[in-house]
Amino acid sequence: MYFDKDEEFVMNRIESAKNPKVKQWKKLHTKKGRDTDHQFLIEGTHLIEEARKSGIDPLELIISEEYDVPKNWSDWQVPITYVTDRVMMELSETKSPQGVIAICQQFEHQLIPSQGRYLLIDAVQDPGNVGTIIRTADAAGVDGIVLGDGSVDLYNGKVIRSTQGSLFHLPIVKGNLLEWIEKLKTLDIPVYGTALENGQDYNEIESPSSFALMVGNEGEGVSKELLKETDANLYVPIYGKAESLNVAIATAILLYGLRNK
Amino acid sequence: MYFDKDEEFVMNRIESAKNPKVKQWKKLHTKKGRDTDHQFLIEGTHLIEEARKSGIDPLELIISEEYDVPKNWSDWQVPITYVTDRVMMELSETKSPQGVIAICQQFEHQLIPSQGRYLLIDAVQDPGNVGTIIRTADAAGVDGIVLGDGSVDLYNGKVIRSTQGSLFHLPIVKGNLLEWIEKLKTLDIPVYGTALENGQDYNEIESPSSFALMVGNEGEGVSKELLKETDANLYVPIYGKAESLNVAIATAILLYGLRNK
Repeated sequence: MYFDKDEEFVMNRIESAKNPKVKQWKKLHTKKGRDTDHQFLIEGTHLIEEARKSGIDPLELIISEEYDVPKNWSDWQVPITYVTDRVMMELSETKSPQGVIAICQQFEHQLIPSQGRYLLIDAVQDPGNVGTIIRTADAAGVDGIVLGDGSVDLYNGKVIRSTQGSLFHLPIVKGNLLEWIEKLKTLDIPVYGTALENGQDYNEIESPSSFALMVGNEGEGVSKELLKETDANLYVPIYGKAESLNVAIATAILLYGLRNK
Repeated sequence: MYFDKDEEFVMNRIESAKNPKVKQWKKLHTKKGRDTDHQFLIEGTHLIEEARKSGIDPLELIISEEYDVPKNWSDWQVPITYVTDRVMMELSETKSPQGVIAICQQFEHQLIPSQGRYLLIDAVQDPGNVGTIIRTADAAGVDGIVLGDGSVDLYNGKVIRSTQGSLFHLPIVKGNLLEWIEKLKTLDIPVYGTALENGQDYNEIESPSSFALMVGNEGEGVSKELLKETDANLYVPIYGKAESLNVAIATAILLYGLRNK
């Protein structure tokens, strides 16, 4: 039983933000630190439970003194460190820490394409956008996501929080999008880019049962090199005076629009 | 000519963040300060130009020394204050200030409902969500937005930035949503709430040429009191394992989905 604050694990209590372990954990706030250790942080009860449901067990839990550990966690075999609220503030990447952080091992998904729905992400850089795109793709029943070069790190804290756990639900791999387009083509899966110029209104496309949608960078869109290799390039029509749509919003409209016609 | 750094307006130069004018401007970062003065701040070239295109002329411009004033601004009759980069950092609500801030008078839109598309927002509290919803509604050709009680202030800096200027493109009014539902009903405009329980898949609804869509709070959804008064309550089907969609994402799927079937 690891959740006893008062007995054997009392030694695992950190009261100073200068403790070397705190410094070590804080390295996981950066991509470099995460890549070096092949680890990442998740914050909050809900995300930790979502990870666990998907077979990702924390290597270690960090719990602040005020945190009320859920009863169904009591049989986890996981080392705990209790910390003061000040140390938790230091470790948390949010303004209002939830009082619990898990250190997890990075996981490698396998994505072997077959008939289905795929999302290719080309250099989307805002963590909130990538997280929201993953959550939305999960809702829309996408079977796998390829995170292309130049996209933000999947294990970025804001990405993880914005996915609301969806990064644990479906395979997400890093990959070269040109190679992926080739692979999908050999399976006769149509690949749709997104482009404002020389594109086609998505309403004109017959709803395909298998497809790959490719969305791109916030400012530049999908790179021209990739747009050349697609079966068609789609756009979301603008009926009002807005100049453009946020990339996560456009992704949502297209994924649901292609599915539901 | 007001844009001459070196001549008559040199007196309008602020070098200290403790200058009383800086303190006065900073009050506009809070709803209370904005409501007291009936003013608000907008940051950056693009937003200021969008405001001006819609007839909202700044009362005053604050410009940092490094800012390169667009040539076509040179005939504006507007008082300028030049500030140091440090003062600009103090005044800006973003991490990377663009070097220009405008003080504007709050504007009152009129929204007299007739046949068309409307969006009713019930207590959406995250500024990024409300801003993105306004931008998306503008793109989807919505004719007017009613911001119900409990929603974040329209003049919040993050709301304005997330709209990307769309708050200047279409009428947005504050209002009591129960009263608005009544008004719309007298015009035979169907009002669709959004609800996960006892709702209807939006794909089952025939695309109406006039409608009002009502979206709600991030955690609670649309209030039950309002859901009782609608013609139907819609949901976006979840095909994967995500538990829910972000409210701005759901709004986008519904606005485009209702329009494009």
